[in-house]
Amino acid sequence: MPQLIAVDWGTSSLRGARLDDVGRVLEEKSAPLGILNVANGDFACVFASLFSDWMKPAGTVCLISGMAGSRQGWAEAPYVACPAGPDELRRRLHWIEPGRIALVPGLSDEQGEVPDVMRGEEVQIFGAVRLGGLAEGLFVLPGTHSKWATVQGGRVTGFRTCMTGEFYGLLSRHSILARTLEADAVLDDAVFLRGVERAGNGRGLLHNAFGVRALALFGRLSPAESASYLSGLLIGEEIHLQELPQGREVIAIGASTLTARYALALRHRGARVRTFGAEATWTGAKALLG
Amino acid sequence: MPQLIAVDWGTSSLRGARLDDVGRVLEEKSAPLGILNVANGDFACVFASLFSDWMKPAGTVCLISGMAGSRQGWAEAPYVACPAGPDELRRRLHWIEPGRIALVPGLSDEQGEVPDVMRGEEVQIFGAVRLGGLAEGLFVLPGTHSKWATVQGGRVTGFRTCMTGEFYGLLSRHSILARTLEADAVLDDAVFLRGVERAGNGRGLLHNAFGVRALALFGRLSPAESASYLSGLLIGEEIHLQELPQGREVIAIGASTLTARYALALRHRGARVRTFGAEATWTGAKALLG
Repeated sequence: MPQLIAVDWGTSSLRGARLDDVGRVLEEKSAPLGILNVANGDFACVFASLFSDWMKPAGTVCLISGMAGSRQGWAEAPYVACPAGPDELRRRLHWIEPGRIALVPGLSDEQGEVPDVMRGEEVQIFGAVRLGGLAEGLFVLPGTHSKWATVQGGRVTGFRTCMTGEFYGLLSRHSILARTLEADAVLDDAVFLRGVERAGNGRGLLHNAFGVRALALFGRLSPAESASYLSGLLIGEEIHLQELPQGREVIAIGASTLTARYALALRHRGARVRTFGAEATWTGAKALLG
Repeated sequence: MPQLIAVDWGTSSLRGARLDDVGRVLEEKSAPLGILNVANGDFACVFASLFSDWMKPAGTVCLISGMAGSRQGWAEAPYVACPAGPDELRRRLHWIEPGRIALVPGLSDEQGEVPDVMRGEEVQIFGAVRLGGLAEGLFVLPGTHSKWATVQGGRVTGFRTCMTGEFYGLLSRHSILARTLEADAVLDDAVFLRGVERAGNGRGLLHNAFGVRALALFGRLSPAESASYLSGLLIGEEIHLQELPQGREVIAIGASTLTARYALALRHRGARVRTFGAEATWTGAKALLG
């Protein structure tokens, strides 16, 4: 087996890992050099500055997932339509240097004439599938644009994006709610779960979000509590609209601060939850090589 | 009857009208002097600069509705709890100068331990009630924070706020959608209605909003069309969550550009719609005097 370098190159940052021949992480690095911060589109230069040492051993292969494979990235690796698994991605790798550096394509899904897309999360999913010995399940990857994906037979059969993280940023920093909300406050679990509960009232986010303002006006939520409550409203809205598998676990992949918050809300709704972190990315890259 | 000056003093602007003794508008004026633009909190000065001429005739009364009666305004006229009609508001006028200048209180409503509030819209509703000879109905006042109110026996029995206009501003100008969206494009009715339809799919705004981005990425919505589609998603989300009265009309009050858009969506859902403009504000103020 060749030595593998796995890179998750996103919009605002990138992370990379050097793996040994059985997939163990030997070394990791990260940099605030997301695709929007690459000067003059010189991706080759940024890549070399970060990874040329790791690429030296003969036969080393680097797989790059995430937005680096988008139209605004290093080169476009066209989306692969669902259902798709590691085999489909491997066949559609976009080689920057044949046999040496490749971009992993993202996935697309079509629902009622509206497409959906992901880039990077598919590798994390296949990593969690391998790490967890899972052939199927419901996966959530929380973030600016959260992804909810269903896996069957080790392949992603469909997924949906929710702009939950981005809505939190907009509402907590740029809306009228910002006047009485401390966006970076430490999470208050009980207040967060009140928001999760409220989201299930069937009145919709457009209405429930205004409740944060009204509760603050009436002195019933402090600025710190308002942040937890709004987070609960948004994550609750997202979760209430999913069909949670009865008696089966939901797989949450991502930074532990986020997956912990989702796990809290999901368990409150009676779901079992299993979480994975960065190891899912590295194992997913390894899974693509076979 | 005294001569009446009616003023709707909002967050970013104000409008006023001088009425004759049967309530006909003799003169109107507006200014970009919302409560956020009043220097040093000197509301008396701004008021005098705009309305001292109109206030000269002996016995003239001025009723001011809107955010001028909030804690951040001229003085606080505490909210009156629903159900409430013109009688309740009249008894709770907050007099700046007794018998001469008064702030109209807003309304509050409590729903499952979460309060809701309006200031200014209540006067418009009572105006439309009088103009339309309506004792009951479902009223919508579109805007930054849209209000949906139910009226029975000439009184507002309850209402809900939706942050529809504010969400449109945030998403069209400050989110990832802004990259492929022309926020001020002329409305395309057909594309708007596609958004209204899409909002009814039960998958939620957090997901459907991302569809605007994905449709643009796949070249299926132009930047101008994206604006109409997003507007349809938001107004559709708001309308799909209301219990529309079977076979009865919905009363829409506000600027014609907005009420026309709501009427389009409501009629698409099979509702009948009747619209009122600024005349509702002036007639509402008159209704408060008896």
